[in-house]
Amino acid sequence: MRSIQDQLQAVLAAARPVHPLDVVLADAAGCVLAEDLHAPGSLPPRALAAHDGYALELDAISQVGPGRPVVLPVTHDVGPDATEPLRLASAQAVRVASGAPLPVGADVVVPVAYTDRGTARVEVHRTVPPGSGVRAAGTDAREGEIVLAAGVRLGASQIGIASALGLRRLRVHPRPRVVVLPVGDELVEAGAPSHAGRVHDANGPMLTTAAQAVGAAAHRAAIAPDDRTALREAIEDQLVRADLLVITGGLGDGPDDTVREVLTPLGTVRFDHVAMSPGRTLGFGTVEREGRGEAVPVFALPGHPVAAMVAFEVFVRPALRAMAGYAELFRTTVSATASAAWAVPSGLRQFVPATLSGSPGGGYRVAPLGDPAHTDLGSLARANAFAVVGERATRVDEGDAVHALVLDSRG
Amino acid sequence: MRSIQDQLQAVLAAARPVHPLDVVLADAAGCVLAEDLHAPGSLPPRALAAHDGYALELDAISQVGPGRPVVLPVTHDVGPDATEPLRLASAQAVRVASGAPLPVGADVVVPVAYTDRGTARVEVHRTVPPGSGVRAAGTDAREGEIVLAAGVRLGASQIGIASALGLRRLRVHPRPRVVVLPVGDELVEAGAPSHAGRVHDANGPMLTTAAQAVGAAAHRAAIAPDDRTALREAIEDQLVRADLLVITGGLGDGPDDTVREVLTPLGTVRFDHVAMSPGRTLGFGTVEREGRGEAVPVFALPGHPVAAMVAFEVFVRPALRAMAGYAELFRTTVSATASAAWAVPSGLRQFVPATLSGSPGGGYRVAPLGDPAHTDLGSLARANAFAVVGERATRVDEGDAVHALVLDSRG
Repeated sequence: MRSIQDQLQAVLAAARPVHPLDVVLADAAGCVLAEDLHAPGSLPPRALAAHDGYALELDAISQVGPGRPVVLPVTHDVGPDATEPLRLASAQAVRVASGAPLPVGADVVVPVAYTDRGTARVEVHRTVPPGSGVRAAGTDAREGEIVLAAGVRLGASQIGIASALGLRRLRVHPRPRVVVLPVGDELVEAGAPSHAGRVHDANGPMLTTAAQAVGAAAHRAAIAPDDRTALREAIEDQLVRADLLVITGGLGDGPDDTVREVLTPLGTVRFDHVAMSPGRTLGFGTVEREGRGEAVPVFALPGHPVAAMVAFEVFVRPALRAMAGYAELFRTTVSATASAAWAVPSGLRQFVPATLSGSPGGGYRVAPLGDPAHTDLGSLARANAFAVVGERATRVDEGDAVHALVLDSRG
Repeated sequence: MRSIQDQLQAVLAAARPVHPLDVVLADAAGCVLAEDLHAPGSLPPRALAAHDGYALELDAISQVGPGRPVVLPVTHDVGPDATEPLRLASAQAVRVASGAPLPVGADVVVPVAYTDRGTARVEVHRTVPPGSGVRAAGTDAREGEIVLAAGVRLGASQIGIASALGLRRLRVHPRPRVVVLPVGDELVEAGAPSHAGRVHDANGPMLTTAAQAVGAAAHRAAIAPDDRTALREAIEDQLVRADLLVITGGLGDGPDDTVREVLTPLGTVRFDHVAMSPGRTLGFGTVEREGRGEAVPVFALPGHPVAAMVAFEVFVRPALRAMAGYAELFRTTVSATASAAWAVPSGLRQFVPATLSGSPGGGYRVAPLGDPAHTDLGSLARANAFAVVGERATRVDEGDAVHALVLDSRG
């Protein structure tokens, strides 16, 4: 029996960040930046009007007060598409639109609302603080400074600053490509007509969705049969297009369970009883991609959907986060009070689909769903957490503190 | 001046959930279920072996004890693809693989590890609890019961149970289709070569990424010019393919700022000074899609990137959540201690890009990034939160409690 910790260590040793690639901004969104981004120029490159108004020297309106407006001639009208800043003569004003280059010699932009909106001459009724209405050169970014640090996830505002700087591509860890391969003669594709003795493939669509939710480019391969030759071919076909392969099913002790036999000679995949419930046998290791010398991490997960999903959460998800370049690999865990009692298998870490309620301030409560000894997919589909009970416990009593692994349910 | 609350109320009155549609499972992932899902049959439809082993009557091994094995003849070997359950004669065993139909008359499955793994006859060394190793009919779902309730987000395990039930399609609120339309003669496409007097479009890629992060099917339209006819044509073209239209830029007071003039006659869009900083003028209303009588919500956001992003967070994101069918529309807000002092514009709710640190237990601290009076995109790109200061405040002192709107930064 292997501990969860040892298994996780082996997984994370093999799950390296995907090799960095320069991709266009639209593809970079949602990825992790692979190297520090230095501003190629200052943003804005020169001082601009921050809003519509009149650019002038603050000194020229120093005498403005209630009932004592100052009148200045308006020499020009400048828009944001002006190529060069004008030169402002003293005691004059230039009408500027938001984003227009600030005339040389001007140090404020008086908003339109503080004036009579004049075109040839303008009456200014209120003064403004020094620097008001001016967006100085380098306000958003100074040339050469680190705008975004390596390891940052590229969300909306990060894509915004890269766009504003005129960048076309960013160096990122691309989304890991994941193939989910369901195995078993008894399986039929989700949605296809079934009959007695056949089971709809749940793990294929479920694990594909789970990998996509981690940000992977995941797709489900066609169901592979138990036949050794056909299964080996299916695995080799899929390895070509995968940064990580998830096989599910075919892990039992019977003669039709061929995954172990087929995978073992292909690479370093080993099969262990891992000390968790639901779970038991898991396969993990790497297989060389034919002719390329690249080692692809391969998981072999149980056919039981809840066991497969627990193994995904505990091992595959952290591996995918690491491959995507994240430093933070794990979901949030909180301490919660159990609202029921249940038995715990000794020596195994137990994961029970559960409803988590409460708040950080008022404390959390966790209620198991279904029978903790025989977890079922219907309960998992209603759960927003797993109650997690340590290897040394043999039971949970009502009121006990247990860990709760928080699943995304808000979207 | 319109309050944020009044503006939000108008927005949410117009942002109705997208009309439900039956979509295939792969497209349903990530969407909100539009109606209760009743199980079309029980899952599993009949009792199955939960693991590999020997199916038998528990009574037949009641005498098993240490050193006192019971030997039973093994009459058959059954896999998960067997179409009909066998009938078990008393005091016999059937070798079963995980997922095989439980023979009629058997009530437990003894794991292989508790036996001598015999094929013609099996020696059972340990007994098991009643019901052990059996997955009863209806364990995951009973025919007719509500498996998933309307309003649930379809994540991995929800797609899993729907797949297991053999469903091909689910009735969901489809992802809202969003078009982001940047407006302005001074803009050039992100990544295109620029020159003095031209500004790279940051809001288009930024707001598109932001809408995608809410789960929308968002795309950025080509930059529209200020010219009234061309702008109206661009808006009408995009309305055909949008459930929601976000226009950005062209909202100033100058003669080249034509968005207000072009949008107003097309529908109910009104332009208000909204009491927020950064922000000021925002447009919101609906425009009828030509010839279809459908009212499409239209936002006109400022050209200033931080003001646009704040307006997106405060108004567009909740609208998109509502359209996607979520009941919970808003991001998490926490109370945090300000780690610096800054001035607050009176009468406006202020949003300052900020770094939030700490934890629910130990308390949160929030530090403003950049100059709170002149928010900049570089600071926003480093922020993981907005510090939010209420309309009545005029300043924040170090140590004051302020709200912090938590942005996704972990991915």
